[in-house]
Amino acid sequence: MSTRTLITGGLVITAAEEVHADVLIEDGRIAALASAGTQEWSADRVLDATGKYVIPGGVDAHTHMEFPFGGTFSSDTFETGTRAAAWGGTTTIIDFAVQSVGHSLREGLDAYYAKAAGKCAIDYGFHMIVSDVDESSLKEMDGLVGEGVTSFKLFTAYPGVFYSDDGQILRAMQKGATNGALIMMHAENGIAIDVLVRQALARGETDPRHHGEVRRALLEAEATHRVIQLARVAEAPLYVVHVSAEEALAELVAARDKGLPVFGETCPQYLFLSTDNLAEPDFEGAKYVCSTPLRPREHQAALWRGLRTNDLQVVSTDHCPFCFTGQKELGRGDFSKIPNGMPGVENRMDLLHQAVVDGHITRRRWIEIACAAPARMFGMYGKKGTIAPGADADVVIYDPAAEQVMSAATHHMNVDYSAYEGRRVTGRVETVLSRGELVIDQREFTGRAGHGAYVSRGMTQYLG
Amino acid sequence: MSTRTLITGGLVITAAEEVHADVLIEDGRIAALASAGTQEWSADRVLDATGKYVIPGGVDAHTHMEFPFGGTFSSDTFETGTRAAAWGGTTTIIDFAVQSVGHSLREGLDAYYAKAAGKCAIDYGFHMIVSDVDESSLKEMDGLVGEGVTSFKLFTAYPGVFYSDDGQILRAMQKGATNGALIMMHAENGIAIDVLVRQALARGETDPRHHGEVRRALLEAEATHRVIQLARVAEAPLYVVHVSAEEALAELVAARDKGLPVFGETCPQYLFLSTDNLAEPDFEGAKYVCSTPLRPREHQAALWRGLRTNDLQVVSTDHCPFCFTGQKELGRGDFSKIPNGMPGVENRMDLLHQAVVDGHITRRRWIEIACAAPARMFGMYGKKGTIAPGADADVVIYDPAAEQVMSAATHHMNVDYSAYEGRRVTGRVETVLSRGELVIDQREFTGRAGHGAYVSRGMTQYLG
Amino acid sequence: MSTRTLITGGLVITAAEEVHADVLIEDGRIAALASAGTQEWSADRVLDATGKYVIPGGVDAHTHMEFPFGGTFSSDTFETGTRAAAWGGTTTIIDFAVQSVGHSLREGLDAYYAKAAGKCAIDYGFHMIVSDVDESSLKEMDGLVGEGVTSFKLFTAYPGVFYSDDGQILRAMQKGATNGALIMMHAENGIAIDVLVRQALARGETDPRHHGEVRRALLEAEATHRVIQLARVAEAPLYVVHVSAEEALAELVAARDKGLPVFGETCPQYLFLSTDNLAEPDFEGAKYVCSTPLRPREHQAALWRGLRTNDLQVVSTDHCPFCFTGQKELGRGDFSKIPNGMPGVENRMDLLHQAVVDGHITRRRWIEIACAAPARMFGMYGKKGTIAPGADADVVIYDPAAEQVMSAATHHMNVDYSAYEGRRVTGRVETVLSRGELVIDQREFTGRAGHGAYVSRGMTQYLG
Amino acid sequence: MSTRTLITGGLVITAAEEVHADVLIEDGRIAALASAGTQEWSADRVLDATGKYVIPGGVDAHTHMEFPFGGTFSSDTFETGTRAAAWGGTTTIIDFAVQSVGHSLREGLDAYYAKAAGKCAIDYGFHMIVSDVDESSLKEMDGLVGEGVTSFKLFTAYPGVFYSDDGQILRAMQKGATNGALIMMHAENGIAIDVLVRQALARGETDPRHHGEVRRALLEAEATHRVIQLARVAEAPLYVVHVSAEEALAELVAARDKGLPVFGETCPQYLFLSTDNLAEPDFEGAKYVCSTPLRPREHQAALWRGLRTNDLQVVSTDHCPFCFTGQKELGRGDFSKIPNGMPGVENRMDLLHQAVVDGHITRRRWIEIACAAPARMFGMYGKKGTIAPGADADVVIYDPAAEQVMSAATHHMNVDYSAYEGRRVTGRVETVLSRGELVIDQREFTGRAGHGAYVSRGMTQYLG
Repeated sequence: MSTRTLITGGLVITAAEEVHADVLIEDGRIAALASAGTQEWSADRVLDATGKYVIPGGVDAHTHMEFPFGGTFSSDTFETGTRAAAWGGTTTIIDFAVQSVGHSLREGLDAYYAKAAGKCAIDYGFHMIVSDVDESSLKEMDGLVGEGVTSFKLFTAYPGVFYSDDGQILRAMQKGATNGALIMMHAENGIAIDVLVRQALARGETDPRHHGEVRRALLEAEATHRVIQLARVAEAPLYVVHVSAEEALAELVAARDKGLPVFGETCPQYLFLSTDNLAEPDFEGAKYVCSTPLRPREHQAALWRGLRTNDLQVVSTDHCPFCFTGQKELGRGDFSKIPNGMPGVENRMDLLHQAVVDGHITRRRWIEIACAAPARMFGMYGKKGTIAPGADADVVIYDPAAEQVMSAATHHMNVDYSAYEGRRVTGRVETVLSRGELVIDQREFTGRAGHGAYVSRGMTQYLG
Repeated sequence: MSTRTLITGGLVITAAEEVHADVLIEDGRIAALASAGTQEWSADRVLDATGKYVIPGGVDAHTHMEFPFGGTFSSDTFETGTRAAAWGGTTTIIDFAVQSVGHSLREGLDAYYAKAAGKCAIDYGFHMIVSDVDESSLKEMDGLVGEGVTSFKLFTAYPGVFYSDDGQILRAMQKGATNGALIMMHAENGIAIDVLVRQALARGETDPRHHGEVRRALLEAEATHRVIQLARVAEAPLYVVHVSAEEALAELVAARDKGLPVFGETCPQYLFLSTDNLAEPDFEGAKYVCSTPLRPREHQAALWRGLRTNDLQVVSTDHCPFCFTGQKELGRGDFSKIPNGMPGVENRMDLLHQAVVDGHITRRRWIEIACAAPARMFGMYGKKGTIAPGADADVVIYDPAAEQVMSAATHHMNVDYSAYEGRRVTGRVETVLSRGELVIDQREFTGRAGHGAYVSRGMTQYLG
Repeated sequence: MSTRTLITGGLVITAAEEVHADVLIEDGRIAALASAGTQEWSADRVLDATGKYVIPGGVDAHTHMEFPFGGTFSSDTFETGTRAAAWGGTTTIIDFAVQSVGHSLREGLDAYYAKAAGKCAIDYGFHMIVSDVDESSLKEMDGLVGEGVTSFKLFTAYPGVFYSDDGQILRAMQKGATNGALIMMHAENGIAIDVLVRQALARGETDPRHHGEVRRALLEAEATHRVIQLARVAEAPLYVVHVSAEEALAELVAARDKGLPVFGETCPQYLFLSTDNLAEPDFEGAKYVCSTPLRPREHQAALWRGLRTNDLQVVSTDHCPFCFTGQKELGRGDFSKIPNGMPGVENRMDLLHQAVVDGHITRRRWIEIACAAPARMFGMYGKKGTIAPGADADVVIYDPAAEQVMSAATHHMNVDYSAYEGRRVTGRVETVLSRGELVIDQREFTGRAGHGAYVSRGMTQYLG
Repeated sequence: MSTRTLITGGLVITAAEEVHADVLIEDGRIAALASAGTQEWSADRVLDATGKYVIPGGVDAHTHMEFPFGGTFSSDTFETGTRAAAWGGTTTIIDFAVQSVGHSLREGLDAYYAKAAGKCAIDYGFHMIVSDVDESSLKEMDGLVGEGVTSFKLFTAYPGVFYSDDGQILRAMQKGATNGALIMMHAENGIAIDVLVRQALARGETDPRHHGEVRRALLEAEATHRVIQLARVAEAPLYVVHVSAEEALAELVAARDKGLPVFGETCPQYLFLSTDNLAEPDFEGAKYVCSTPLRPREHQAALWRGLRTNDLQVVSTDHCPFCFTGQKELGRGDFSKIPNGMPGVENRMDLLHQAVVDGHITRRRWIEIACAAPARMFGMYGKKGTIAPGADADVVIYDPAAEQVMSAATHHMNVDYSAYEGRRVTGRVETVLSRGELVIDQREFTGRAGHGAYVSRGMTQYLG
């Protein structure tokens, strides 16, 4: 038995269109769009979106729920994290399953399947972090692509943990060139950074702000250039995560000017925060410790420009929350022991709408970088990321005029601080549907753990 | 009394989506889209598009019907030219009204209104060529913007005819910066080129191929750089027409990397033809004389890359046909007397579909550069350039599998040769609707002169 | 009868070497160098340079004595100007003969030969300003090359006065490509600037500082790019005078990276002064009005870098003094009427030595940009610009430790202000020889008008 | 008792001057230069250089005598190698002492002191290869600088042998930034290359030409970019050895445009040979196996341009000969086992003179890149690299008109093949003096093992 939901009177915004249209949902999918008021559709449920935006649910392509780092785990579970995502207008996340050194991809992925199963309020997929590239794990990649894990992340950072050497990276990229997987890179020269970390600590520079100083922008740019060249050698596409430095972006721009299939993501924290935050006194800077690190304020303009010129295609959160109390505090007296990561999955859609209000991007570009492009990049477009006949009915009714103040007191992420505490923004999620079901209904959570389904993704649709 | 047309079973392709959907048309507009087969709509007319593409009608933003050049007129009237456009799947053209030196914009525009009135098979708009920038014509620009002529073309080429000096260009751009008009530039250093023309003729180099040799790529690049800098001084956006040289494109790329609102158009002739054609014997090269000129074959890859990277946004035709017999022949013995221009309004959609077949661009990018982007660039998007609720029902049913051979023997343009004579391409227009009316019905012309209406355009929608 | 002069004990500095050596001069030429104290040479005159530098006399490749501009003449005659040059350690100037529109090069050059004859304290050559490029003046260029005028200056600025259009520039460059002459360009888009000037005056912006604002850096960069492209078309080398804007320098850098024979000169005023000076109150800014204009302070670092990387090869003065009283004052109430130009021929060597003290350049680079490179650029090297056997004995004994304060009260230029009033610098000319004769002897002027001889220059020696 | 040698009648060419001058030598040093014929000097020995060039002895800053590689040693000893160098007009070499992993710099350097002592026909210095960067070896660097070993070479290539990781490289550079040492880098991504090597061998690609194919130009460019960025982080100057790829040069150019103290060397083999040689049949390609590898012929133009624009400063040989028979043959059936290196110390000055004849560079630039710049780069200028009062009398009388054919049959290097077999060049060394002593006298070897002395070098003189 089918249920029909009708959303009437809103301004439907996708990456390409802004149309006053009614949206008809049947059986969890978008069935039809019609000029507002022209079609007399019957429906089980009618949602009035007059004066509101009707947008695709957000796709956050970079989250870390229950992620092991520095001897602790990120504080959001798949349950708490996806619920918070829904509150923030995000209806799909792609989290990272982790291979541990010495273990198979299979083991790592299965562990994450288990972590997420039955917990999620919204749909979810997985990238796979490959920590141990060898003959065996390379072979496993083919199998994972077959079950919808079509993107693999490697690191030039974190020697001894996630780090791969250039030969391993090259081999993984070669594999991607043959099986269609997209290689994602955390690009910082971790080997050189570790030298600078030790030297800083030896000089007594232990505060959080030194985290930002030792992780030099030049060393992000260097690694970005390097992985681009390796991708050229492998003739593979490349996706660089959490680009934060203007100099790193310049490497992407140069590559893209050559027509190379090189893509980049940035995150709200690099667009809205800066080393000023890292320098907050009383160890408060620890709240903003993540890698790549926050950069001086001047880098923000370059990132906004990159988003406008499409040299950056995606804004994800790299959501990886650690509570200040008990977790961030592990690094008191030694910034290198502060768990790396920040909360944000709930804030992304609103912060980017604020960017619309502020004139950084258009409304359509907002939807593109937050919904359509991540879906397309990671092989889900058509199903996710747009409002079009046949797509999953992941829809947000967004009130562009409502004001809100971001705060740990009111957010739904399981973390004891907000990176945007006290920030007033214009725009707010009102109602969220996931495959046609109400998850947030007029700012009440009506979803449930276990509604969210695993998304088996296809190959990236961003090429050709 | 409203008429309803239903297009069923096709693959609807827009710049953003590829959806199997039925399209409902009411009163000349797109009323609704629905997943194929899900809505049981009644309609006066049902068009079966099974196995076909359903695409927005093409928007050709650069045509010259009945255009005065070199003592003659381009050979297509608005009647013959727009009919041929329809045959080729184009449902909107933007032609160029011409101010003559010493006359007002008003006079020039009115003359073109008169030329087109009651003649066109499809909708049309006008850009305005400003040949005489002064206090008075600058003032007139405001008025023209008000009646939907929101783009103005100037030339760094053709001294003594259309040429404006850098001060005039700067002033027109400043005007654009205040009244929202978009300045279009023909960018070649005409002053320097004229020196080279005279020198070539003095050396006895009179053949058509010398047209391509004297109009140096470096001098297109120079003028492109120059008008970009002038636009920066004026703080105005800029649209460069018919980019043909890799070096000129590089100037656009550099500007766009800086985030400047600089846009570029290329044309099928630069993508598919080359100086090899200009060098055809027996004065046949004259068929390919246009400015900017065809370039050596090596430039084509750069242009395709520019289309893929969105450093070029639009493909127009610069359709400006002159018959070989009697018109092109004016330049026998003196290439500088060959009327500049080529036919193409009928070929554009097919040639670009061939580019899809050849792997240069995706299907969506085909629609973007040929329909959506020109509409958006010139202030008609939403109405033109897409298939979405509320848009004009300018729709083409396109058969992606049909083969055709381009030829003057079969084309509908009023010119005695085809620039693509004998070229076999895959894909063909089957049916064309203009505002819901059948103009081409299963490859029969069912339109009429006078159906086409003037489109009063808004400001460019391509900025922020 | 030969005279021998011996300079002992100094540190001989050339562009290539720093050697403690004795210098033997015979018959106006350098006869020999020997390690200090090793050769027992007899001499008529022995100059003790212990603790001093022994350097080649400066070559100032850009001066304007008695130059007609804006209805007046620059205030230094060849007599006063060359005397001041000698005081400042410069032993050769290259001034600019001027063709007036409608007159021949011959007339212009002869007039300058006459102005200079019998007046100069030091040697001098001429470039030729070509104001009227046509068949006849192009032909004349060949003859002038034959008599040692091997460089010709054209302007993209000053429409109606010195301005040449791009076709004229191209033709002059083509001439240079065949007869070996070097084309020098004043590169600013004068046509566009004139629009901005009129607009500024219309807005009531009449103060000297507006001179700097309307002559936009982008318009210097534009013209620089343009003349580079024209030179590429002509396959001719190019020398850009008085580069002041970082953006213009960037165009030179890009061209030179391609291996193109493109050269650039800057001037002390761009290295040491800025728009801050142009903004001095009470019309004092007029003292600093020259074109290209002074730029914001931030440009200085780029120019110094350009000098270090050899993207700029020469520092000349563009010495063109106008008295504040009676001359600069012509522009009260209308900055466009302020005669363009500044004094400096006496200050160049000292200011550049200060740059050595300040760490901007090395000692050898000081000599290179001030002596060797200009001599080589303009076909005099070997004779001028170095201390080597066979060279003209144009030698300066320079005290690197002496301090001085620059001031109109003490300078020898015929102008009522100093652009560097009150500036304290380290280093001072002590003794100057011109072809072996003492012109300045221990800071007394011992020269005479008429000693200076015309230098018939060869082709540029700076190419391959 | 002093001896005096007089060289008369030649054209003395240095990096800066071309002067017809007599050169007086006393006690092994240049005592004086005088215009030809003007000074009546007595001398013990007069060498008539009429019609010849008198040039500084060559400085070859990159040789490997008796160098351990791939289980064998390069075939020239310090005795045979320096004798051959003298034959080729080179009077100073800088060889590489090698630290073995697990041993101290001291041990490595002492071993090389011992190898060279009493053997050399000409003067020699040492760079130090650091294979094992750690606290201890970093400390040792200070001491070595004190004894005239002021440059240290590290490798991003050869994992497991000479390879240093980025952290080690950074630390060595930081050391250089404080003690003035110049870090030299072999820049190829050896980690990635090793992957490609294994893959090629696995595919059965075992011929010498595959050596060139797997060592991708992009991977030289990548490593070049990387070490530049590390040098920026360390705020240290950088010298990149044996640049062979256009893309790597482009990285140097970009860095130098920013004003960074980044320097580059290329070698005759990259200027005159290509992958065509590597592809010679019957394993002959092995003769041309060196790393960085020979590149396709198209790269040569870029290298010549880099030499002209001074983006490359030095041409050294990387002389590292292995006999074809018995040594190169170790790699039959496995190109990765071919000892890397080529002979050339005897050919460099002649090949570069041929480049003068061919129009690639000027005579002065020949001397600059082959004598002056390497001396200056490595802290010997004034003593070595020029002909000026006070300099060591390392002088070559060079016959610019003599022709010769390069051949293993006639060369003096201890290796059984010539990389330039059969190549006819114009120009030949006639006579060579080392510190005033005749080593080659009219093409007879008159030198002796042990004449050559160790040169304790100062800091690089190439910086500001």
